[in-house]
Amino acid sequence: MIVVMKPKATPQQVEHVKQLVQEMGLTSHVIVGTERTVVAAVGDKRGVDKSFLENTEGVEKIVPILAPYKIASRETKTEPSEVEIRPGVRIGGKNVGVVAGPCTVESRDGLLRIAEAVKAAGAIGLRGGAFKPRTSPYSFQGLGEEGLKYLAEVREQTGLAIVTEVMAVDKVEMVAAYADVLQIGARNMQNYNLLQAVGQQGKPVMLKRGMSATLEEFLLAAEYIISQGNRNVILCERGIRTFEQYVRNTLPLAVVPELKRVSHLPVVVDPSHGTGHAYLVPAMCRAAVAAGADGLIIEVHDDPEHAVSDGAQSITPEAFAEVMGECAKIAQAIGRLL
Amino acid sequence: MIVVMKPKATPQQVEHVKQLVQEMGLTSHVIVGTERTVVAAVGDKRGVDKSFLENTEGVEKIVPILAPYKIASRETKTEPSEVEIRPGVRIGGKNVGVVAGPCTVESRDGLLRIAEAVKAAGAIGLRGGAFKPRTSPYSFQGLGEEGLKYLAEVREQTGLAIVTEVMAVDKVEMVAAYADVLQIGARNMQNYNLLQAVGQQGKPVMLKRGMSATLEEFLLAAEYIISQGNRNVILCERGIRTFEQYVRNTLPLAVVPELKRVSHLPVVVDPSHGTGHAYLVPAMCRAAVAAGADGLIIEVHDDPEHAVSDGAQSITPEAFAEVMGECAKIAQAIGRLL
Amino acid sequence: MIVVMKPKATPQQVEHVKQLVQEMGLTSHVIVGTERTVVAAVGDKRGVDKSFLENTEGVEKIVPILAPYKIASRETKTEPSEVEIRPGVRIGGKNVGVVAGPCTVESRDGLLRIAEAVKAAGAIGLRGGAFKPRTSPYSFQGLGEEGLKYLAEVREQTGLAIVTEVMAVDKVEMVAAYADVLQIGARNMQNYNLLQAVGQQGKPVMLKRGMSATLEEFLLAAEYIISQGNRNVILCERGIRTFEQYVRNTLPLAVVPELKRVSHLPVVVDPSHGTGHAYLVPAMCRAAVAAGADGLIIEVHDDPEHAVSDGAQSITPEAFAEVMGECAKIAQAIGRLL
Amino acid sequence: MIVVMKPKATPQQVEHVKQLVQEMGLTSHVIVGTERTVVAAVGDKRGVDKSFLENTEGVEKIVPILAPYKIASRETKTEPSEVEIRPGVRIGGKNVGVVAGPCTVESRDGLLRIAEAVKAAGAIGLRGGAFKPRTSPYSFQGLGEEGLKYLAEVREQTGLAIVTEVMAVDKVEMVAAYADVLQIGARNMQNYNLLQAVGQQGKPVMLKRGMSATLEEFLLAAEYIISQGNRNVILCERGIRTFEQYVRNTLPLAVVPELKRVSHLPVVVDPSHGTGHAYLVPAMCRAAVAAGADGLIIEVHDDPEHAVSDGAQSITPEAFAEVMGECAKIAQAIGRLL
Repeated sequence: MIVVMKPKATPQQVEHVKQLVQEMGLTSHVIVGTERTVVAAVGDKRGVDKSFLENTEGVEKIVPILAPYKIASRETKTEPSEVEIRPGVRIGGKNVGVVAGPCTVESRDGLLRIAEAVKAAGAIGLRGGAFKPRTSPYSFQGLGEEGLKYLAEVREQTGLAIVTEVMAVDKVEMVAAYADVLQIGARNMQNYNLLQAVGQQGKPVMLKRGMSATLEEFLLAAEYIISQGNRNVILCERGIRTFEQYVRNTLPLAVVPELKRVSHLPVVVDPSHGTGHAYLVPAMCRAAVAAGADGLIIEVHDDPEHAVSDGAQSITPEAFAEVMGECAKIAQAIGRLL
Repeated sequence: MIVVMKPKATPQQVEHVKQLVQEMGLTSHVIVGTERTVVAAVGDKRGVDKSFLENTEGVEKIVPILAPYKIASRETKTEPSEVEIRPGVRIGGKNVGVVAGPCTVESRDGLLRIAEAVKAAGAIGLRGGAFKPRTSPYSFQGLGEEGLKYLAEVREQTGLAIVTEVMAVDKVEMVAAYADVLQIGARNMQNYNLLQAVGQQGKPVMLKRGMSATLEEFLLAAEYIISQGNRNVILCERGIRTFEQYVRNTLPLAVVPELKRVSHLPVVVDPSHGTGHAYLVPAMCRAAVAAGADGLIIEVHDDPEHAVSDGAQSITPEAFAEVMGECAKIAQAIGRLL
Repeated sequence: MIVVMKPKATPQQVEHVKQLVQEMGLTSHVIVGTERTVVAAVGDKRGVDKSFLENTEGVEKIVPILAPYKIASRETKTEPSEVEIRPGVRIGGKNVGVVAGPCTVESRDGLLRIAEAVKAAGAIGLRGGAFKPRTSPYSFQGLGEEGLKYLAEVREQTGLAIVTEVMAVDKVEMVAAYADVLQIGARNMQNYNLLQAVGQQGKPVMLKRGMSATLEEFLLAAEYIISQGNRNVILCERGIRTFEQYVRNTLPLAVVPELKRVSHLPVVVDPSHGTGHAYLVPAMCRAAVAAGADGLIIEVHDDPEHAVSDGAQSITPEAFAEVMGECAKIAQAIGRLL
Repeated sequence: MIVVMKPKATPQQVEHVKQLVQEMGLTSHVIVGTERTVVAAVGDKRGVDKSFLENTEGVEKIVPILAPYKIASRETKTEPSEVEIRPGVRIGGKNVGVVAGPCTVESRDGLLRIAEAVKAAGAIGLRGGAFKPRTSPYSFQGLGEEGLKYLAEVREQTGLAIVTEVMAVDKVEMVAAYADVLQIGARNMQNYNLLQAVGQQGKPVMLKRGMSATLEEFLLAAEYIISQGNRNVILCERGIRTFEQYVRNTLPLAVVPELKRVSHLPVVVDPSHGTGHAYLVPAMCRAAVAAGADGLIIEVHDDPEHAVSDGAQSITPEAFAEVMGECAKIAQAIGRLL
């Protein structure tokens, strides 16, 4: 941490800052510049809130140097991690893994039909919501455990890994009993009790970035899970909220190489929520693979006109098959497989 | 809802849209313009996801007309609501109510000292976190029930209403047993299970706006609580995330008159999180009152240099007393009392 | 500037950074921490682009310490500046100065009528566009010099100072011949040729913040003007672009105390563009004054239904008179005059 | 345009709105819904400011239906446009065209060296700034006409098309005399006088999106140019300003398919400004091509440590050659050529 003193800070004020730094168990180095004096505080105290220093007389600002996350970082583990979501099926290695399916589980038959279609096109996982976080209390909230059962049954018939959202601590056990991967939705990225709960069970977790979370906050949310003992965390970018209005969310794909630079965790991209419009999804699938994503998670529905949710952003199985073909060639162009 | 057809939409496509509109239980009116045909769908189906229509052949876009919230709106209740937080103490009427206190409950004595100071300066409530949602898993997470006890004890001694955060469904009962107002933090604004849980108990709820929530999403979160039977919801603006870097959050005060225009719920402002810097807090307290806020919630600490959290944005009791004096005059200038 | 080295940076890489720092004329101090080595580069080279260092082997990131602006800062001039816009009429001292008028100059009679109304309510200046930067090439672009003449005539009759926008370098002389204050619009905040041109003439300049400009960029734009010799710069906040949709722009009032903290220049607020809706303007006028603004610039029209532009955000002379009364009391509450 | 009336709007208010709509030369259709009455105003009056209607009694809001741009839209011209930047060299067809070079023209020899390198790797154009819009008045502002001469000379030797920025109306003629493509920088996207000036000369224009411009504003800026007679406009996405801090700008690649959906103009992407960090540039080059971009514009420098500007985001000729190889394969994967 660097403490930047005000231009006219007194020697007493600098001395007081040095004392406060020492109280925290850090050592201090004072550098007197031409315009400013700065106090460099050396040592690793990531959990300690140091912001109060800003409120100290003579201090202009505080500049942190160390990233606040640790076990999610590349410094702790230099090799990229792979997460096994089903026996022999991994996300994070050379293969680009695609998970696809409806927004909401609506019926067993419909789910199976879509699952078979996406599997035929090369998907390794099936997505589908049994518990749905809906912005409006009046919207359909999902089939609950019945939906989980359908998902498990379709896994038996297709071999696809099941990725489904868990929204509440008291449902973690139930969802983990059916699913292969527990998804934490964007709205719950900073629901710390939930993060701890999924960290305390054994199934892999797909953690979606909150729609206005910084990468630091995103990796600290992963750190909440990992610090409970569960290292099988997959990061998922699903778009951020910006001033843009032609999309439901702005999909910032530079996050893919950046996350892979600073963290060892695998990174997947959700171009469905990341755009909100079926007509933009295929281009963003291709771009995400080209940017180096380890996987995609895509909403597919065979009758979008009667989807109970997210109809606008669901692509058809035909469109899905086509984009999978393109993505496979792009993966190959950068030395990967899909 | 207005369905805007593409420039070259065929009559068959328009007909198909009319059918889909009717399937939803809405009636349709077709208007043929010079450049576009639009289908107006008449009726109130707020809970039904209509986005799929965008994916229908010939459709360019969907324009919603009705706000998706209902019982939180001024249409349902034209008079502003008042929320009684302690017998005889209300937020939402002519009085501007100020809640102040430390970010985190640290000790009984410290809490009492701060409580007495803010009460002397005119506060009606005491804030203080017993359960803290911390961005980092390594940060101090609060004293838990011990902190709640301190809060309740200080209420006995000062008469201040207690406002404290609840982060988890399984802690709602415990927090409600000690607190006067249950605070839902910004990170949990779309934690729907938690919203439902606080809606099912009787204590008033202070709902903080998520840092990138639209007003619609904010009011729908309030609607989640109210729809469970608890009408005592206080809305709290605490700043949004934007590109600005000189503040922790950007405090958009136009939200105050806008929320009061579209909703009957009282609106309070948190200038501490809304700026992140003690030196900006007094000006934003004054501005919030001038903008018409029904209350303020302010972080006050008598030793910010040793605050365990949010030291940078805590003001001292002296600064608090001074700004209360200014705010009282401003309240008077616009026909209110503080 | 602080150069943060990567965790495994070699001594050679640190040495190379020291050399590059010296090549720039700065002196270097190396601090070896527990997790990182940092090189502190001491000296004031604000105009030199140092970003390339980030591309140097072993470097993780660059952290600037000095603000890049200088003559606009409080360090250079500790007392707040006042700008005289007409003989004896100043913006920036104890008085809060209000400039009001139509978006566009439409006719001499209409302008005079509005001018007399706003003067009667306490305005010291008249705004009105003769050259209009319109988002669409098909919109009315203003009366040009004819509009300037009307403004000058109305000044003769009312004594109000004239504030009007200049959009092009080749019109600076013409606008300066008629106006008292040259306004640089938000879209032109980084039109550097225009900034230099208004810096080379003698009339005061009201510089509007670009809708996504950081405060650093804003003050550097002011610095462009001042560095040409014209110190009479008034900063104007008119709202920023965020994800919010219920307003045309988000008005971040914390900018007022922050700008006054880091700069000596006077700060005015434009609540008309800052909200975009007449029904939000009065509350934001009041809030801006309470936040410490040195002035307001407000769109007023006596027949908004027939305004050629910005009808939605123009308030009537009656509403203006009412809000002026409230603002006068608020000014008094904080020891100022309006 | 749809005028949504308030829930309790009176018949007189609806009637008044109908009259105002007719005054504008539009015809009105009234639809009485269950919760709202709406007035649909039919007709094409894109240049007329209709916002004032919002200020009319009984009106809740105005919803525009038609996009405000016209000649830049796909409705006016359904086939994608190609822009010829040098005899036989086009941007916008099957080929993906890459323009590369230094941020700033620094010397003839350096420029030639870089030009030969990027040409060898497949570039069709050379970028390089002679007039530089610098955020700080103290930064190097470019070599001016001398820089233009170097660019023209290097074109003679390499055959590369020259793309360079023009910042001022009075320099348009000079820059057009040397360059093949006139670039309008992001900061000048709404400098309407400059847009008109480049629209009145014959050279193609590369228009960069402003860092917080909506797509509508972007296309209206293009419309300013085209409406002056110059149809050779290339749109360039260079990143937008959001809350993200790990990048200089957030690169929203969904803009590529969206712009191509609503407009016929070619779209290129600038991954250098779009990220700000050399280590993120290659991934974003690949992603942009995969998303369907018609071209790329990339900063390349053979000695980034001594680049006078943008050193952090310049890639080396070696890195450029490598990413060109990958992009060529990706182009092929989606049926294009590079």
